[in-house]
Amino acid sequence: MNKEYRSRTDLAYEEVESLEIDGVKQSEYIHKDVKIHKTVVEEMGSKQLNKKPGIYYTVDCSDYFLTNYNSYDDLEEVLIETLKTMFKELNIGEKSSCLVVGLGNEKITPDSLGPAVVNNIFVTSHLFALQPENIQKGFRKVSSLIPRVMGDTGIETFEIVDAITKRIKPDFLIVIDALAARNIQRVNQTIQLTNTGIHPGSGVGNSRKEISTETLGIPVIAIGVPTVVDAVTITSDTIDLLVKYLNHEFDAGKKELLVTSNMKDIDYTKEVDMERKQQFLGHLGVLSEDEKREVIYEALTPTGYNMIVTPKEVDENIENLCLVISNSLDKALHRDFR
Amino acid sequence: MNKEYRSRTDLAYEEVESLEIDGVKQSEYIHKDVKIHKTVVEEMGSKQLNKKPGIYYTVDCSDYFLTNYNSYDDLEEVLIETLKTMFKELNIGEKSSCLVVGLGNEKITPDSLGPAVVNNIFVTSHLFALQPENIQKGFRKVSSLIPRVMGDTGIETFEIVDAITKRIKPDFLIVIDALAARNIQRVNQTIQLTNTGIHPGSGVGNSRKEISTETLGIPVIAIGVPTVVDAVTITSDTIDLLVKYLNHEFDAGKKELLVTSNMKDIDYTKEVDMERKQQFLGHLGVLSEDEKREVIYEALTPTGYNMIVTPKEVDENIENLCLVISNSLDKALHRDFR
Amino acid sequence: MNKEYRSRTDLAYEEVESLEIDGVKQSEYIHKDVKIHKTVVEEMGSKQLNKKPGIYYTVDCSDYFLTNYNSYDDLEEVLIETLKTMFKELNIGEKSSCLVVGLGNEKITPDSLGPAVVNNIFVTSHLFALQPENIQKGFRKVSSLIPRVMGDTGIETFEIVDAITKRIKPDFLIVIDALAARNIQRVNQTIQLTNTGIHPGSGVGNSRKEISTETLGIPVIAIGVPTVVDAVTITSDTIDLLVKYLNHEFDAGKKELLVTSNMKDIDYTKEVDMERKQQFLGHLGVLSEDEKREVIYEALTPTGYNMIVTPKEVDENIENLCLVISNSLDKALHRDFR
Amino acid sequence: MNKEYRSRTDLAYEEVESLEIDGVKQSEYIHKDVKIHKTVVEEMGSKQLNKKPGIYYTVDCSDYFLTNYNSYDDLEEVLIETLKTMFKELNIGEKSSCLVVGLGNEKITPDSLGPAVVNNIFVTSHLFALQPENIQKGFRKVSSLIPRVMGDTGIETFEIVDAITKRIKPDFLIVIDALAARNIQRVNQTIQLTNTGIHPGSGVGNSRKEISTETLGIPVIAIGVPTVVDAVTITSDTIDLLVKYLNHEFDAGKKELLVTSNMKDIDYTKEVDMERKQQFLGHLGVLSEDEKREVIYEALTPTGYNMIVTPKEVDENIENLCLVISNSLDKALHRDFR
Repeated sequence: MNKEYRSRTDLAYEEVESLEIDGVKQSEYIHKDVKIHKTVVEEMGSKQLNKKPGIYYTVDCSDYFLTNYNSYDDLEEVLIETLKTMFKELNIGEKSSCLVVGLGNEKITPDSLGPAVVNNIFVTSHLFALQPENIQKGFRKVSSLIPRVMGDTGIETFEIVDAITKRIKPDFLIVIDALAARNIQRVNQTIQLTNTGIHPGSGVGNSRKEISTETLGIPVIAIGVPTVVDAVTITSDTIDLLVKYLNHEFDAGKKELLVTSNMKDIDYTKEVDMERKQQFLGHLGVLSEDEKREVIYEALTPTGYNMIVTPKEVDENIENLCLVISNSLDKALHRDFR
Repeated sequence: MNKEYRSRTDLAYEEVESLEIDGVKQSEYIHKDVKIHKTVVEEMGSKQLNKKPGIYYTVDCSDYFLTNYNSYDDLEEVLIETLKTMFKELNIGEKSSCLVVGLGNEKITPDSLGPAVVNNIFVTSHLFALQPENIQKGFRKVSSLIPRVMGDTGIETFEIVDAITKRIKPDFLIVIDALAARNIQRVNQTIQLTNTGIHPGSGVGNSRKEISTETLGIPVIAIGVPTVVDAVTITSDTIDLLVKYLNHEFDAGKKELLVTSNMKDIDYTKEVDMERKQQFLGHLGVLSEDEKREVIYEALTPTGYNMIVTPKEVDENIENLCLVISNSLDKALHRDFR
Repeated sequence: MNKEYRSRTDLAYEEVESLEIDGVKQSEYIHKDVKIHKTVVEEMGSKQLNKKPGIYYTVDCSDYFLTNYNSYDDLEEVLIETLKTMFKELNIGEKSSCLVVGLGNEKITPDSLGPAVVNNIFVTSHLFALQPENIQKGFRKVSSLIPRVMGDTGIETFEIVDAITKRIKPDFLIVIDALAARNIQRVNQTIQLTNTGIHPGSGVGNSRKEISTETLGIPVIAIGVPTVVDAVTITSDTIDLLVKYLNHEFDAGKKELLVTSNMKDIDYTKEVDMERKQQFLGHLGVLSEDEKREVIYEALTPTGYNMIVTPKEVDENIENLCLVISNSLDKALHRDFR
Repeated sequence: MNKEYRSRTDLAYEEVESLEIDGVKQSEYIHKDVKIHKTVVEEMGSKQLNKKPGIYYTVDCSDYFLTNYNSYDDLEEVLIETLKTMFKELNIGEKSSCLVVGLGNEKITPDSLGPAVVNNIFVTSHLFALQPENIQKGFRKVSSLIPRVMGDTGIETFEIVDAITKRIKPDFLIVIDALAARNIQRVNQTIQLTNTGIHPGSGVGNSRKEISTETLGIPVIAIGVPTVVDAVTITSDTIDLLVKYLNHEFDAGKKELLVTSNMKDIDYTKEVDMERKQQFLGHLGVLSEDEKREVIYEALTPTGYNMIVTPKEVDENIENLCLVISNSLDKALHRDFR
C-alpha cells in the first residue's frame, strides 16, 4: 500500500505505522473505521518469523459489525481495494479466469464460512460457454467449488481441488476458510488475505496437503477468518491482560491485590517489568510466551478441557462475514458487477 | 433417590456419595455411564448457599455422546426416572395436564435448546378436545409454548407464559432453557433439573421476572443445560488446574517450572497448600475463588474481551441434547408413548 | 385509492378500471410494474359474493421477482402506501400500538411465510418500557407473536392470540398468513390485504375460530399470500385455458384438433360460446365453473391424488415475499424507519 | 428377482405379475407393504420403449410413510435387497470401492435429495488410508461427492464427476438425484433404481452430459426419486381419472353429468370405450395420450402457467426419503454396518 496503491484508488488510506526489520516490512493503514495491516515477508525474514515468504494483509474489523448496523460499505471498499492490489501484485489481469474454493464444513457453524461465501457469489463460467451473447464485457469467468471436508468425503481436500483445477484450468484460485485464532482479539474480528496458500483443516495438526501456488502451479489468494480459539489461548491472553491491569493498579498506588472498581483508563500496551511479573504471578510470571502457553497446554490437556470455542453469536457473525466477503469478491472480480 | 425410589424403577442406581450439612443434603448416584447428583436445599441452608430452597438434580453426561454413538438409551432412562421422581415429589399425577415451555432464541444456536426440544415433543391437548376417541388411556394432556425472547417479541417472556398459563390452565409446567455455565466442566455436559424455577435470559443481569411456582401458582419443573461460558470462567478454572498440575510436577521432584512432556497420572483433586500457590502464581495464587474471578473480570472487561463462548461443535451438541431431552419428556409424560 | 389517496403519496397510481355493482365497488390501479385491485364489499353485496363486508386489496406481483432482480423498491412502495391507506380507513393513528402475528408452520416451507415475516420485523415495545430515552419520535410500539399451529402446540391458535392480545392490549393487530389459492395465476404472485380478518389453518375445513375485529375487539389487518394450490384448481383452470386456446385455433381456420406449433398471439380473455365448448370438451364443456370443479373433485378424491402443491421454487419465493413484506411493514409502521 | 434372488435373501418377495414382450421382461413382486416392479429392457425392446437397454427397478412406497410412522424397516429391507441384487448383476464385489454422488441443488428443497443423502452416509475411504487398523473387515471403501448444479458452480456437472472419478478411481458409482415425475401417482412415492445412468438437471431439455457406464467407464447405479411434476401432467392425469369416474357413474345408471356424492367403489382400472370418451370430453376425449399432453402443453405454455410443482409437505417427504435411502446405502455397502 505504497503511494502508487493509494493513487490508484479512491480510498483515502492513511499510513499510520511503518517498520522494517531484516527481511520483513510492516505497514499499517487506516480507512474510516477499518485498519489494514500489511506484512511482506522476504526469504531472509521467513525463518525468523516461521512464516512462509509472501504478502500478508490483515483487515481489522473489531466492533465493525456492532457499530455499522445495516451497511458495511466501508469494510467492503477496503476488501475490494485489497483484493485488487493483490491481483496487481500477482499479475492477475481483468480477464483472468478464477476458481473460488470454499473450504470447511457447512454443518459446523464456525467452520462454515468458506462454503457460505461460495454459495453466495456470482458464477459466470457456464454463461461464457452457453450464452456468450448475454455476458457483458465487464465480467470475467468465475467458477466455484465446495470440496467439503475429508471426514465427509473420504477424499483428501487437496485431491479434489487439484483434480478440478487440472480439469477446468482457471488462471488463478481464491480460497476461503475459517481458521483457528492465536489471539482472543482476532476471533470473528479480522479478515486475513495472503498469497502464501492455506492448509485445509489446519490446526488439526496432520499432514494434509497445502493449497498454494507451489502445489497447484497457479496464483492462489487465501482469505481466512479466525472463528475459533482454544482455552489455552484464552487463558494465556487473559493472564497477559491481567498482569498489565495489575501493573496499572500498583502504579496507581495500590500495594495489595484487592478488588477495586476502578475500570477506566488502563493502558494495556505498557510493558511490565520482570520483577512485577513475578510478584503478581510467581513462577508463571517469568515464563516466556511460548513456555506459558506450553505449561497451560500441559495442565489442560489431560483433563480434556482444552475446549475449542467460538463466540455465542457465531451464527450472526458468520452471516455478516459471508455477506461482506462475497459482495467484495463479486465487485473485485467483475468490473461491472453492481 | 432413596430405597423407595430405587424400588419403583428398574434402574440400578448405585449410591456413591452422601453428605449432609445444616440444611443441605447431598447424594450422588450412578447408573451405567451416567452420574446423578441430588441436592436438597432447605430453608436453613438456602442463605448459606445463596440458592433457593428446593430440589436440584444434576445429570452428568460428560463424554456420554462421544462414547455412546447412535444410542442414548441409558441417559434417557436416567432422565425419565429423574422426571418421574420429581413428579412424585411434586404430587403430579398420571393425568395432570402439562404445558411444556421452551425458552431461548432459535436463531442463536447455543440458545436454541428450549425451542428445539419443544418443536420435537408430542403434544396431545388438541386431540383430547377434537378426537377424544383416538386418544389412548396412557397419555396425558400436553400443550407447548415457545415464547421466544424479549428482543424479538417486544414482550416480557414472563407475561407470555403467564397469559397462556392462565388461559389454558395446565396442572403443571415444564420449562427448558439453555444456561450460562459457572464451570468449564459443565458446558454441554450436564442436564440440570429443579423445582425452583428459572429466569428467562438469565446471566444478562436484568430484572426479568422468574418463571416459578411462586409466580405462576402451579408446580414448575425447570430443565437447564449450560451451553455457554465466559472467558473469566475459562481462565479462572484453567488457573486452578494449572496450580494442581504444577503441584504434581513439584511433588515429582521438579524444582523449576520447565516444560515437560509428562502428561499422565495427575491427581487433579489433590489440594495445594498456600505456600506452593504463592510460589507458582504470586499474588494471584493467594486470592480466594471469588477474588480471583473478580480481578480477572476487572482486567478483561475494559478490553471487551470477556467473550461468551460455546464449544465449536455446538450444532451437534444441541442436536443430541434436544433428542435425548425430548424423547425423555415424551416417555416420562405419557405411560404408553413408544 | 381516490384523489385524496393519491395526493397524500408520491406514488403515481393510474386508475385503470372501475366498476360498481349493487353493494360492491371495484377499482384497479397501476404503479410501475405493480397492479393493485381494490374491492369494497358492502352489507348488500356481501351475500351475493359470499364474502364478508369490508375492504380487500390485491397487490399483483406476477413475474415481479423475476424481472426485478435485487431491488424490490416499487413493490415495497405500493405495499407501504396500501398499508397507510388502510391505517387511515381504520382510524389507526401514528402512535397506535401494534401486535404483528405470524400464523402458520415454520417447518413447512409454503406455510412458513407468517413466522418468517415476524422473525424479520423490527419490534420496539420493550424499548419503550426499558430504554425510553433511546426511542425516537418516529417510532410506534410494535410487539410480535408467532403462535405456531395447533398440531404443534395442542392449543387453538385463536386462544393464544386472544390471551396475548388481552394481556398486552395493543391498539390494533396485523396478521400474516399463507393461504390456499383458488386460481393458478395467484400462487406466490399476489399479496392480499383486508380488514375482514383471517381463519388460521384455513382450507382444512374445520371450525377454527377466526382472528378478526369481531372476535378480538380491535382493528385487524390481515395480509395473506396464496402459496399452495390443489390439483382440482390446476386442472379446472387449465381446462379453461385449453378451451380458449382451442377456440382460437378454430377461429384461425383449423377444423380438427391436431397438434400445431402455433403458440403466439392467443387472446385468453375472449369468451367461448357454448356450442364450441361442447364440441371441444363434451359434457364437461357445458358445466358451470362450480359444477366442473365439483366433478373433478369427486373424481380425484377417492384416488388420493388431489395433492396440495406449491411451486418448485417455493424456498426462494417465500424468502423474497418475506423480505418485501417485512420491509414494508417496518416502513409503514415507523415513520423514521430506514 | 428370480428364485436365485429370493433364495439369497431373507425377504419373502411374492411374485404378483410377470409379462414378456419382445425385448422387454416385466415382473412385479411384493414384500409386506412395498411393491417392487422390475423391467429388463433388451436391445430389441429399447427402441420400442424409447428407453436405454438395461435393468430398471421401481420401488413403490405410496402412502408408506403415512402408514409406517417412526420405523421404515420394511422399505429399507427392500432397498437393501434391490441394491445387493444390482451389485450381483453388475459383478460388484464385497470389496469394490464406491463413490456416492449426490446430484441436485441443496437450496431448492425438492431438488435437494441427492446432497441430503450424501451428507447422511458413512464414508470410509480416508480411514482405509489414515487408520487402517481401525477399519473392520465388513466395510468397503466409500467416498462421496456433491458436485452441486451448473448454475452455482459454473462447471458442467459431468466434468466434476468425471475429474474426481479419474482421480480417485472408484470401482463403481452410485448416483442419487431428484427427478421430474411423468405421472401424479409417482411424486415422492417411488424410488427408481437403474444401471442405465442419469442426466444431471434432466427435464431442462439441454445437452448436459449423461453420467453412465458409457461415459465414465465403470458401473453406475442411479437412484432417482420423482419429486416434482408439471401442470400438464397433473391436468392430463386428472382428465384420465375423470373419464373413468364419469364412465362408472354412467354405468351406474346416470344419464347426465350431474354432481353426485357417490364417491366409493370406483374401478379406476376399467377401460372406457371411445364413444363414451367423446361424449364426456368431446374432441379432447378422442386424442391419444401424447396428443392430449401436447395440446395441454400448447395451451398452457404461452400463459406461463405450466408450473413445476411439488407437494406442500416436501420438507418432510425429502427428510423421510433421505433417511431411508442413506440407511439402505450404508447397510447395502458395508456388511458390518449397524
